[in-house]
Amino acid sequence: MPDLKNAGPAGLNLLTATVAAQKIAAGEITSEALVRDCLERIEARDADVHAWAFLDTDLALAQARACDNEAPRGHLHGVPIGVKDILNTADMPTEYGSKLYAGNQPKSDCATVAALRRAGAVIIGKTVTTEFACPYPTHTLNPHDLKSTPGVSSSGSVAAVADYMIPLSNGTQTGGSVIRPAALCGVYGYKASHDNLDPTGIPMWKSSIDTLGHFARSLADIALMRAALTGDQPASLNLPKDFQPRIGICRTKLWPEAGAENVAMIDTVSAILRDAGAQVDDVDFPANFDEINQAHPILTGADSISVLPEEIIRQLEKVNPWTRDRTEEAKERSNEEVEEARRVAAHTRIDLKQVFENFDLLLTPAAEGEAQTDLAAMPPPSFNSLWTLMYTPCLSLPVFKGPNDMPVGLQIVGAQDRDDFLLALSAWIEKKIIEAIGGLPASL
Amino acid sequence: MPDLKNAGPAGLNLLTATVAAQKIAAGEITSEALVRDCLERIEARDADVHAWAFLDTDLALAQARACDNEAPRGHLHGVPIGVKDILNTADMPTEYGSKLYAGNQPKSDCATVAALRRAGAVIIGKTVTTEFACPYPTHTLNPHDLKSTPGVSSSGSVAAVADYMIPLSNGTQTGGSVIRPAALCGVYGYKASHDNLDPTGIPMWKSSIDTLGHFARSLADIALMRAALTGDQPASLNLPKDFQPRIGICRTKLWPEAGAENVAMIDTVSAILRDAGAQVDDVDFPANFDEINQAHPILTGADSISVLPEEIIRQLEKVNPWTRDRTEEAKERSNEEVEEARRVAAHTRIDLKQVFENFDLLLTPAAEGEAQTDLAAMPPPSFNSLWTLMYTPCLSLPVFKGPNDMPVGLQIVGAQDRDDFLLALSAWIEKKIIEAIGGLPASL
Repeated sequence: MPDLKNAGPAGLNLLTATVAAQKIAAGEITSEALVRDCLERIEARDADVHAWAFLDTDLALAQARACDNEAPRGHLHGVPIGVKDILNTADMPTEYGSKLYAGNQPKSDCATVAALRRAGAVIIGKTVTTEFACPYPTHTLNPHDLKSTPGVSSSGSVAAVADYMIPLSNGTQTGGSVIRPAALCGVYGYKASHDNLDPTGIPMWKSSIDTLGHFARSLADIALMRAALTGDQPASLNLPKDFQPRIGICRTKLWPEAGAENVAMIDTVSAILRDAGAQVDDVDFPANFDEINQAHPILTGADSISVLPEEIIRQLEKVNPWTRDRTEEAKERSNEEVEEARRVAAHTRIDLKQVFENFDLLLTPAAEGEAQTDLAAMPPPSFNSLWTLMYTPCLSLPVFKGPNDMPVGLQIVGAQDRDDFLLALSAWIEKKIIEAIGGLPASL
Repeated sequence: MPDLKNAGPAGLNLLTATVAAQKIAAGEITSEALVRDCLERIEARDADVHAWAFLDTDLALAQARACDNEAPRGHLHGVPIGVKDILNTADMPTEYGSKLYAGNQPKSDCATVAALRRAGAVIIGKTVTTEFACPYPTHTLNPHDLKSTPGVSSSGSVAAVADYMIPLSNGTQTGGSVIRPAALCGVYGYKASHDNLDPTGIPMWKSSIDTLGHFARSLADIALMRAALTGDQPASLNLPKDFQPRIGICRTKLWPEAGAENVAMIDTVSAILRDAGAQVDDVDFPANFDEINQAHPILTGADSISVLPEEIIRQLEKVNPWTRDRTEEAKERSNEEVEEARRVAAHTRIDLKQVFENFDLLLTPAAEGEAQTDLAAMPPPSFNSLWTLMYTPCLSLPVFKGPNDMPVGLQIVGAQDRDDFLLALSAWIEKKIIEAIGGLPASL
């Protein structure tokens, strides 16, 4: 697990957001004390972890003191968070992970940042993103093992939460940029249903595929941040009494790519949940599921060239090779090919709705296996792109450790736009696993 | 690691004592809030862990509120602790783990408890001890795996700290009752030099062998509790600049009993510390070291029959089989045999002083290996009784995980009555291991 010793004494930075917000509201702790402990942790560790793209200590402390001088404004009053540096912030530079945008200062907050501020959050800085949130790796490292990848593209957001620098951060997902890093770093990751959280004001947003999400160290915190973003109360994490979920085990065509630790996890969890009274069955997917993994890069590429600014398209030699090559490929693709991919995706979404008439949720690995030490490797699309394209809400639950003692995540997939229900189902699954095995070894 | 999920949100109970005391003194948190979070953790978990022999919520909260209403009194002002139920407390029953003492209420605090109160500690309850602190197991379980032993005899004290119920607790050691449980539960355990901490007022104290110690989740906390007990300032955890420790690797005659995880740990740590500049050599022990493991039970037995109250000796059929059998054996032993054992022990202590002229510390396993699931098994004396009998200060550092993902502890043995130096040496070793491998996987 992430090293809490290396940073000297561990302080209020260990608290979850839910507990911290309660204690701030009750006057038991101050936001300033909490933020100071988070900043101390960052100071001690970020030279190794590299989670932060921008950090302004004075600005963070000023926000915290302002919170301490007023009554709680919202769900995250006084709670420090990190914002992925792909989201515009009016008071901090936003560089999209690209040297082409060094020092870029947006004029306004995107809708996500504005909602977080309304909820009282202390935005302590911007977290490292890969360039334009593409899969090309950055220099951020996995807090569980500083020789391994934390996953891309929300690399800084996941590492900062996993390393106890902050309790909450947000991310975005095009392929697996939230769910996979969460699994590799042993935290809770949640990708919303497509367009369920408001992406207004995020530049270069690929609107047919990109989706917002966030990271936390507890399910309650996932619900809390979601509530801050929707303006609602946090989802109840309880299912109706005696509700027995209908669970689909989703091996998909990608099963041969699943590591042995994933196969063992799915088998173990299936047995536990069946014992707990759930109906657990393998899912048969419609035939066109096979075509979806080809549709994903086609649609992503098409969106990319329509949203990348002209000056980037003209300087592709200055961006990372992944973005360069995929953009070049997309420029060559015919309109017909793109339209056919859109059609297949739309049809498959309708077929999937039928699947969800027989199942409350699907279980599948959240990543290909444990985090790897090859930092230059491109992540495989397995287990993630499919669900982003299907617009379903997904959650990564930090369940087990793998053969190298690194986290392995269980992905829970819900029906589109039933995000709150997915959180309650996830809480039920977490509870049953804990009852069966006494804990969640992959997480704190 | 211990399950932090099962208890609902994790709160101030995660703080170390050092950090908690600082925050209470700075007014950032209240002792009451801290104690409430500890009590909530206990409420959620103790039906599984069984760490507590006596707990009075109201009494604990009253102590906390009293602390919140006064200026800091000492090193542990407002910090909740647990006291092994072998130590007399004037305001809580003390049953010595024996049904023969059910409801026993001492009239006064022993010296340890009195010192802890003077330092401002909130004594929230009494932790489970085996009967008369013997090796016969109790019902307390290992927070890392509720099917495994936490080690004996300070079982409740170690489990409560490892499970984040409290940051500090004390223990006593006759064989390995502090160092071994600390290793099995992945926390820091410290056994003082013999008579270095004051045992006055502990009934049935076997004065030629029993020794006080304590448990924590950081080395700074070990130093802090020691300071509370000695009345001094906490030991500095820094060695003099450029000091390169002379380290003896102590395989002893018991090496064949060391698990593979222990052998790997000693080899790895030796290499790390040698790389860090230490002089690391195997130690050749004097010949009479072979006889010491026979002397230990002889001296323990002799002390036992002299301190066990007459009414216990008369009802041996009502105590656990270990105490019964060892007491019967001791009654049969000749004075000459006991005197010869005392002589061998005294001579070996003198020989060991010579060893410490060439070494600053010795390294050896803190237990036979990972915690086992056979709860009824008697612990082997390996690696522990020797050092108790030698009167040396010992510390268990939670270093690695073993093949079953359970903690494995490194024992650091110092020269008699150089306890503060041992803590500084331990901090140096911890730092070098963290620098080399990025963390201490066995601990929080």
